Amino acid sequence: MIQEITSKQNTKVKYCLKLHQQSFRDEEQKFLVEGEHLLEMALQNNSVLEVYTLKKRDLPENVHQYLVNEDILKKIAFTMNPQGVVAVCKMPKEKEISSNKVLLLDDVSDPGNLGTIFRTALAFGYKDILLTKHCCSAYNEKAIQASQGAIFLLSFHKNFELSKMKKNGYQIISTEIKGSIDLDSFKPEEKHVLVLGNESRGVSQELLDISDVRVRIEIKEIESLNVGVAAGIVMHHFSK
Amino acid sequence: MIQEITSKQNTKVKYCLKLHQQSFRDEEQKFLVEGEHLLEMALQNNSVLEVYTLKKRDLPENVHQYLVNEDILKKIAFTMNPQGVVAVCKMPKEKEISSNKVLLLDDVSDPGNLGTIFRTALAFGYKDILLTKHCCSAYNEKAIQASQGAIFLLSFHKNFELSKMKKNGYQIISTEIKGSIDLDSFKPEEKHVLVLGNESRGVSQELLDISDVRVRIEIKEIESLNVGVAAGIVMHHFSK
Repeated sequence: MIQEITSKQNTKVKYCLKLHQQSFRDEEQKFLVEGEHLLEMALQNNSVLEVYTLKKRDLPENVHQYLVNEDILKKIAFTMNPQGVVAVCKMPKEKEISSNKVLLLDDVSDPGNLGTIFRTALAFGYKDILLTKHCCSAYNEKAIQASQGAIFLLSFHKNFELSKMKKNGYQIISTEIKGSIDLDSFKPEEKHVLVLGNESRGVSQELLDISDVRVRIEIKEIESLNVGVAAGIVMHHFSK
Repeated sequence: MIQEITSKQNTKVKYCLKLHQQSFRDEEQKFLVEGEHLLEMALQNNSVLEVYTLKKRDLPENVHQYLVNEDILKKIAFTMNPQGVVAVCKMPKEKEISSNKVLLLDDVSDPGNLGTIFRTALAFGYKDILLTKHCCSAYNEKAIQASQGAIFLLSFHKNFELSKMKKNGYQIISTEIKGSIDLDSFKPEEKHVLVLGNESRGVSQELLDISDVRVRIEIKEIESLNVGVAAGIVMHHFSK
């Protein structure tokens, strides 16, 4: 289906604008992506419901296509340069945790950090991502952008019981300075949950208490690394 | 010296506002920092010339102190929450390269990435940072913020001759996919320059040609890592 939209007052345009709010995205279980690369990844993953585009595109039949002008596109896009396309995607249903290597993000609050961690997680085979209650949303526009599309290939979980996972054989590994062992001298079990903490507070006491091991990256002169960088170093080390 | 400023039209306020432009910062060889943590690090490094503050502070005698109101402070600050203080700092003079572990950033364009790399570089003992011509400025406000103050403890170099450094015994190591060896099977010489490339284009051909070795991080499913994450993984590996 192809339709043209010429007015900024169109209900479809207004709906897209409402999807700029996280609460509305959660309610509708939908989110926006923009640009060629993200659209392509979303299409490969059958996540696309609607496409708002400057020029007609070759799209699957079940995707609604709306031809819009530059003004409308800029209005519904987050960035100044949406590369001619914005798409409405559906959030996937929460699945069972199926992989041995799991990442738990404990209240990571910066969307750029979150997206960067997603990109790295995919690169090192961490496909199940657990997000605590106060973690930034995986479908925040900046997180999606920083993930470079990795969000379409990962499974996100908000409902999980770490104690149950521990009983099921997952080794729980937290990154923490105090009472920890040097990362370089540690090899994880094949089945593990790597826990990374909030940018200021680190991993919460509750999660530290349930952890089997605490590891630290040896550093000099500065208190801590950026959480995205720390995530990369640990996941790379665990993938050897 | 303590003085009060009550008008937004004050020449000092206007001067600070001009320091929001990179070209003016370069011309004046001065830059702004804000917040308690960065002020503290700048003071430790004797970089502070002037402080604009909501309340009187205990500062070294050679630092000019200006008492301002919230409106003025917000006007001269970059962020919405400057934590009550903005300081004018002087850029250090370019020094000789003095360390064995050197980092070369080839046109890294995102200030957040740049600052994150600075923070990581300091943590792993890379204190001399070479910046190519089109690299984002080290004194960009977002780079300073992301560096968490590391900029005050690093030496930046814009004038360098890599061929001369190579003759002087530096091993030149580039991060690159093509024709490269796996990072995990490579150990650098003690004296080396690690080259990281631009976010989209990677390391330039010119720098690849002069490199002694090309290394890559083994990844799956995604084309590349964020440059700040890649920098962290390589520097951590080289620090073992």
